[in-house]
Amino acid sequence: MGRHSKKLMVVEAVKDWVINGRVKPGERIYSEYELSKLFDVSRHTVRLAIGELVDDGWLYREPGVGTFCGEPFASKKGKNRTNGKNIGVMTTYISDYITPSIIRGMESYLTDRGYSLTVVCTENDHAKERLCIRNLLDLKMDGLILEPTKSSQFNPNMDYYLELEERNIPYVMINQFYSQLSPFHLIMDDVKGGYIAAEHLIQLGHERILGIFNSDDLQGVHRMKGFLQAMRTGKLPIVPELVVTFTTEQFNDDFEERLLNTLTNKKNTPTAIVCYNDLVAAAVQKVLQKLNLCIPEDVSLISFDDSSLAESAEIRLTTIAHPKSRMGIDAAKSIIAAVEGNERDLSLEPPIIYEPALIIRSTTDVVKKNRSAVS
Amino acid sequence: MGRHSKKLMVVEAVKDWVINGRVKPGERIYSEYELSKLFDVSRHTVRLAIGELVDDGWLYREPGVGTFCGEPFASKKGKNRTNGKNIGVMTTYISDYITPSIIRGMESYLTDRGYSLTVVCTENDHAKERLCIRNLLDLKMDGLILEPTKSSQFNPNMDYYLELEERNIPYVMINQFYSQLSPFHLIMDDVKGGYIAAEHLIQLGHERILGIFNSDDLQGVHRMKGFLQAMRTGKLPIVPELVVTFTTEQFNDDFEERLLNTLTNKKNTPTAIVCYNDLVAAAVQKVLQKLNLCIPEDVSLISFDDSSLAESAEIRLTTIAHPKSRMGIDAAKSIIAAVEGNERDLSLEPPIIYEPALIIRSTTDVVKKNRSAVS
Repeated sequence: MGRHSKKLMVVEAVKDWVINGRVKPGERIYSEYELSKLFDVSRHTVRLAIGELVDDGWLYREPGVGTFCGEPFASKKGKNRTNGKNIGVMTTYISDYITPSIIRGMESYLTDRGYSLTVVCTENDHAKERLCIRNLLDLKMDGLILEPTKSSQFNPNMDYYLELEERNIPYVMINQFYSQLSPFHLIMDDVKGGYIAAEHLIQLGHERILGIFNSDDLQGVHRMKGFLQAMRTGKLPIVPELVVTFTTEQFNDDFEERLLNTLTNKKNTPTAIVCYNDLVAAAVQKVLQKLNLCIPEDVSLISFDDSSLAESAEIRLTTIAHPKSRMGIDAAKSIIAAVEGNERDLSLEPPIIYEPALIIRSTTDVVKKNRSAVS
Repeated sequence: MGRHSKKLMVVEAVKDWVINGRVKPGERIYSEYELSKLFDVSRHTVRLAIGELVDDGWLYREPGVGTFCGEPFASKKGKNRTNGKNIGVMTTYISDYITPSIIRGMESYLTDRGYSLTVVCTENDHAKERLCIRNLLDLKMDGLILEPTKSSQFNPNMDYYLELEERNIPYVMINQFYSQLSPFHLIMDDVKGGYIAAEHLIQLGHERILGIFNSDDLQGVHRMKGFLQAMRTGKLPIVPELVVTFTTEQFNDDFEERLLNTLTNKKNTPTAIVCYNDLVAAAVQKVLQKLNLCIPEDVSLISFDDSSLAESAEIRLTTIAHPKSRMGIDAAKSIIAAVEGNERDLSLEPPIIYEPALIIRSTTDVVKKNRSAVS
C-alpha cells in the first residue's frame, strides 16, 4: 500500500469515528503516536492525514494541547451565516451506500461558507432525472453538483442540461459525466481501478478470476476495461463466462440466481472475484455462504469503494477506495469557485481524477493450487 | 482546405470515376496537369493523390507512357489465387449509403491477397448482431472487421466478443468501438468533425444553428460534442431547442414532423443546420422544400460523410468527408497483418484516426442578416 492510500485509510477511519459518534465534538482524539500504532503507519503519514482532516474541518488543533474533534458541520458557524445562495445536488440515491459520505463532504464545505444545499435523487431513472432537473431549474439554484443517471446510455434529457448552460447556471458532474456536454467533472480513474483490482489477484496467483460489473454506468464499463487489460497483461486467458454484467434492475431481480449458475459451472469455477462495488460483494458473499465456500480460503474477493460495508463486514473487505467525502468537498469547492468567479469557465478547467487506492484487508489471499473452489 | 483534404478530394473523385465506370480498366486517366486544373489544386497534391491510388491498386503507371485505370478488383489475380483464408465483415447495413464504398475498399485489398470475404449485417439491432457474431464464430473466420451496433449503449453481446478473444480470432473495429474491449479501431475524429462543421457556419456569420444528431451511435454523441464546443468557442448562445437528437427508429418514424415543428417555431428559427449525415440532410432538404425555404439563401446546410448523395444531389452538399474506401483498405491491411503475424497484438497498436475534411460545395453561404429564415 502506498503512502497516499495509507493516509487515505487514516483519514477515512477518523471521519467514520466522527460520523458514527465514536468521538464527540470537542473530544480530544488519539495522539500521533497512538494513531500510528493503531493503523501501523508512520507518524509522517498520520501527520499528513491529520493535516487534511483539520483543513476540511473534521478536526481542529489547540496548539500545545492536542487535536480535537470538530463541531458537527450542520451546527457550525456556517449554519447561522447564510449568503442566500443555493447549491442543488442531484445524485442517483441519497441515503444509500457511499452517497451520504459524498454529500457530507459537500455539506461540510458549503454550509461552512454560507451556502444552503438542496438534494434530489433520480433513483437511477431517466424519467425521474428529468423531473429532478426541472425542479432544480425552477428552484433557480446558483450552481449544481450532478451525478449522471445511467451514464453508459445516451441521456434523453440533454435539452434540460443545455438549458442549464443557456441560463448560465454552472454545474459540475461527479462519479461520471456526459461527454457530449464536456462538463467539468470529478471522477475516479475506474479503468485503473479495475486494473489494480485484477492485478492484485493475479499477483496472488489467481488465474480463474470472475469479474462482475454494472452495465448501466460508465464506472462499470471502465472497471471492466481495466479488468480485461490486467488479464491480458498477466497473459491469463479471457473466459467469456467469467465476465458477468448486470443492470441495476437485473441486480435487484435475478442476480443471485445467475451467480449461483456461474459459480457451480465446474468447467470455469473461479478462485477469485472482482466485484463492481461493496454492495455487489455483499450479495456475492451471501451466495458463497450458500455454497459453503470460505473467503478467502476458497475464493478471494476484491471490491470497490471502501464503503462502511467493507469495514464493518464480518470479514473485512479488500477494496479499491473511492474518495467519498473528499470528492464531495472538491465538488463543492469547484462549484463555489464557478458561482463566485463569474468570469471562470468551468468547462475549460481540467477534470479532477482520483487515483484508485488498493486497501488490502481480509478477503484476498494467495490461491490454493490443486483445489477446486467448489468442493 | 488543407493539402491533406485536397488530396483526399482528388483521391475520392478518381475512385468514384472507377467505381461508376467513367474510366474503364486500361484506359489512360487525365494527366497531372489536367487533374490539377480540374480540381484547382497544385500538381504536388495531384502527385500525392495518384501515388496513393497506385499504391492501393486503383491506378497503375506505365513509365514514360502515363497512368491508367487498374483492373476491377474482383477480376484481378487475387480472384484466382486464394489462400483459403476468410475474413468476416459485420456492418450495420451492407448495401446502404457509404457502406458499399467501405466494403469495396476492404474487398480490393483482401481479394487481391487471396482472402475471401463474408459480409453480414446487424441492421443496427443488438439481437441481430448476436446472431451475426454467432454465425461468424461458427464459420471459423481467420479475422474479423466489425462495425459496432448502437455504440452509444452498453452492448449485451460482450460474451461473444470475449469469445473471439478467447479463441484468438483477431478483429478490428471500424467507425466506432466498444471501449471496454480496448480493440484496435479505425475511426473518424467525430468530435473534430462536429467542431469543423459548426465552425464553418459560424465563420459565415450564422448564429442560430440547428444541430441534428443520431443518439444511437457514439458518432452522433461525438459530433454533438464538437458542435457544442464550436458554439462555445464562437461565443454563441446554446439554445436547447436547436439541438435535436434522434434514434434510428425515430428517424424512420416521426423525424420530419419533429423537424417541421422545430423549423416553424418563430422564436428560434435557424439560419443554418448541421446534419448528422447526408441521409439526414436529404430528409432535411425535403422538409425545407415543404416550407418553401431555399438552400443556401434561406438556410445553409452542412452534413457528414460526402456520400454519393452529397455529390449527386440537385444542390451539391457541403459536407465533412468520411474516409470510406480508405478506411476499408486500412482495416483490411490491419486485419491481414494480425492474421499473418501471429505475434502481433493488435490491441496494443495505436488506433487509426482520420482527420475530418471539410468539402465546401453549394449548400452553405454567408448568412443574410435581418431576414427570418421562415418567411
